[in-house]
Amino acid sequence: MADLKATIEACNVKFMERYSSGDMKGLSELYTEDCQFMPPGSETKTGRKAVEEAFGAMKPGVAKITLNTEEVGGISEGDVAFERGNFTMSKEDGSSAGVGKYLVIWKNVGGVYHLHIDCFNTN
Amino acid sequence: MADLKATIEACNVKFMERYSSGDMKGLSELYTEDCQFMPPGSETKTGRKAVEEAFGAMKPGVAKITLNTEEVGGISEGDVAFERGNFTMSKEDGSSAGVGKYLVIWKNVGGVYHLHIDCFNTN
Repeated sequence: MADLKATIEACNVKFMERYSSGDMKGLSELYTEDCQFMPPGSETKTGRKAVEEAFGAMKPGVAKITLNTEEVGGISEGDVAFERGNFTMSKEDGSSAGVGKYLVIWKNVGGVYHLHIDCFNTN
Repeated sequence: MADLKATIEACNVKFMERYSSGDMKGLSELYTEDCQFMPPGSETKTGRKAVEEAFGAMKPGVAKITLNTEEVGGISEGDVAFERGNFTMSKEDGSSAGVGKYLVIWKNVGGVYHLHIDCFNTN
């Protein structure tokens, strides 16, 4: 399970880097093509384009997102895992834009773990 | 996977019944003892007592919760599963108190599936 946590954390590093640099298309490619994105304040959205747009809309107010994995578990034959964690959001000047938590289902597609279902909210 | 969905839906019937009748202790026993409860607006809470209190605090404004399973998936060897779904909340007079969505990690403890991690938000 240590390997799984390292795998997921490595993907989360890419998530944070791509968000910070504004590469929302690259960020969306960390998700499966048929992902379910479940943000607060709207219905569940499906697919990478929705993810790209959602994070694009968030960027003006939130310069940076920091993800912190708390727990990973449960793989079925190496293909599906869950991750529970928390996140902090920061403005351009480094001040807080809020904190929250998330539950993600990760799916191995073609040997690479992708975010498949992503549900989160703020505290 | 059809069996898993039926199992989870049967547990959700108990969830809805116990919530409606105000049996929050019974409701909390549908969760694992070390569950992680992730509601919007507060930090992650651990354990059944926190679940009991959270739903007790919700009851005056929300008479009834209806859960609708959209998707279930197995994670590891029959012991861990995930469920993605949506919910509606109703007031005493039947009018809407909001709609939302959830992602739950279910864990088989002693042959019975329990909610183990529950993350949700409103639309």
